[in-house]
Amino acid sequence: MANPSNAITIALDAMGGDKAPGSVIDGAESFLTQYPDKKVYFKIFGNRDVINNLVNKNKLLKDNSELFHTDQIVSPDEKPSSAIRNCRKSSMQLAINSVKARESDCCVSAGNTGALMAMAKITLRPQDGINRPAICGIMPTIKNHIVMLDLGANVECDATNLYQFAVMGEAFARVVLDIRAPRIGLLNIGSEDLKGKDSIKLAHKMLNETNLPLDYRGYAEGNQISSGDFDVIVTDGFSGNIALKAIEGTAKLFGHHIKESFKKSLISKLKYLVAKSCLENTKASLDPRKFNGAMFVGLKGIVVKSHGSMDKIGIANAIKVAYDLAHAKIQEQVAEELKKSVISEI
Amino acid sequence: MANPSNAITIALDAMGGDKAPGSVIDGAESFLTQYPDKKVYFKIFGNRDVINNLVNKNKLLKDNSELFHTDQIVSPDEKPSSAIRNCRKSSMQLAINSVKARESDCCVSAGNTGALMAMAKITLRPQDGINRPAICGIMPTIKNHIVMLDLGANVECDATNLYQFAVMGEAFARVVLDIRAPRIGLLNIGSEDLKGKDSIKLAHKMLNETNLPLDYRGYAEGNQISSGDFDVIVTDGFSGNIALKAIEGTAKLFGHHIKESFKKSLISKLKYLVAKSCLENTKASLDPRKFNGAMFVGLKGIVVKSHGSMDKIGIANAIKVAYDLAHAKIQEQVAEELKKSVISEI
Repeated sequence: MANPSNAITIALDAMGGDKAPGSVIDGAESFLTQYPDKKVYFKIFGNRDVINNLVNKNKLLKDNSELFHTDQIVSPDEKPSSAIRNCRKSSMQLAINSVKARESDCCVSAGNTGALMAMAKITLRPQDGINRPAICGIMPTIKNHIVMLDLGANVECDATNLYQFAVMGEAFARVVLDIRAPRIGLLNIGSEDLKGKDSIKLAHKMLNETNLPLDYRGYAEGNQISSGDFDVIVTDGFSGNIALKAIEGTAKLFGHHIKESFKKSLISKLKYLVAKSCLENTKASLDPRKFNGAMFVGLKGIVVKSHGSMDKIGIANAIKVAYDLAHAKIQEQVAEELKKSVISEI
Repeated sequence: MANPSNAITIALDAMGGDKAPGSVIDGAESFLTQYPDKKVYFKIFGNRDVINNLVNKNKLLKDNSELFHTDQIVSPDEKPSSAIRNCRKSSMQLAINSVKARESDCCVSAGNTGALMAMAKITLRPQDGINRPAICGIMPTIKNHIVMLDLGANVECDATNLYQFAVMGEAFARVVLDIRAPRIGLLNIGSEDLKGKDSIKLAHKMLNETNLPLDYRGYAEGNQISSGDFDVIVTDGFSGNIALKAIEGTAKLFGHHIKESFKKSLISKLKYLVAKSCLENTKASLDPRKFNGAMFVGLKGIVVKSHGSMDKIGIANAIKVAYDLAHAKIQEQVAEELKKSVISEI
């Protein structure tokens, strides 16, 4: 069916991810069923030989999508530099091109992160006022959710990068988490003014003195990522990636020990049957599929990355993130803010 | 009683920690009861008006300790620089002095970390061959335990610092975790050779090419801190502190969600009663008291820091770490290694 003019058009890389294209197509279908009030049209990029059948099974998706055939795929172990040179006709690159050409409002891929980042950066270029794009993700806290950036795009960052991350992260939290005035924290190893690296101390000063109406709450320590004291955590890509993965590892460690405790004896196995529903509630509260959808912020175009291992529920959530960002015109919001931002003597 | 010549002498700062001096004195007593085969003599530094009564209640501790009175205390919010200037007669400083004067083999304190680090650095000085001392701690993994350093002493580190941390961490893991050939990992944001900061890439090269018999396994990502793939994780103090606290925060997040799941209804509260013992097994496996005892490695003297919130069980474990390190003459081991270490062209 043709693309209705008032719909958000989403370019979908159908071939990226461990369970692609099935998980991606099912995820798109799942999104349409879950959010009937959100008008969306999918441009699906991938191999028609496998995708056509999957799409044809579902009338709703078939009526709200269009297929663009290509048989080139970016493999999970392709190096970014080689992906850029050798995968110009890949489903990933074509989906990004569609955003560049303004034929789509945003792009979603569960494929190779490094390749996606490199292609997006080169094709879309950083938006005006942003020196370095960053990866921005959502994580659970004791009270609610939090936005953290950079999660790994920039190994080293200066104060201006961190300041711009704060502005982008704040806009992201307003749109995706629906928080009116997100509380921003700058990741550091102590809450005193004198601690940390020079770049962090300078960014702290810039955020304290900015004329923008940011609710900057000062330094946040590693344990405060999940404490619920903040809505946005700003950090460089090295620390952000280490923290994100340390949190993922700890979640696994907990899951492992709980499993082991209930496996020790026949009695403990029976106890598990009794406690199961409550333990599954915990699992559901912390379900990584809920937090799927990291965005490359700071580009002239919206690119959302789904975790490669996601099933349709995770993919549908990544699509929801992309929809929200496109619908709120996030780039225009960020550009507007940065234009207003006056930073005094640095 | 007099100090028997074959005992390890431990200088104990009785006044540091949230529950001091009770927790510290009880911890020393608990250590003696738990390890009757380990010959230890305590030099206890603190206020005799409160300590005498506590010590006198326990014959074993009384027979194996000596009290050195002082009424000066380093408060938890004292700044390191001011502690050094103004707390020269404090229980913390006197305990460190006792190590410096070789009257004690090691020192244990649960007091102000910044002050302890600063006093230890200035009083004891870095050991030969070490440019920067580091904080080294123990954490749980899916399989066993892991040693990680630096946890916050050095915000920025060069390749030589990281290389020396690896040598010290390896010795620490051999002695404290009793692992014959600890597997060393260098914390980074990807496992490929090209990723990460220059200092990390250079340290990677040095560790790959060293003539020392180190079992260096290459880069480790944040999730591998707790995966059991490594026994030692080497990193700079900024990333190490962020990772450590992110892990602590996630543990709290999990505990919180589990509690909430079992509190939802009367039925779930009853389920908790059934599952309680298994959940407590999980809690016990991950009990932070087991992992208490961070060491300042790289000084001419052993200083072990207990977490300030610890009770007697945590303190006894910190004393055990100090005992093991002193008994194994860890500094001599590290000095020996570094003397043998030939690092080719850097």
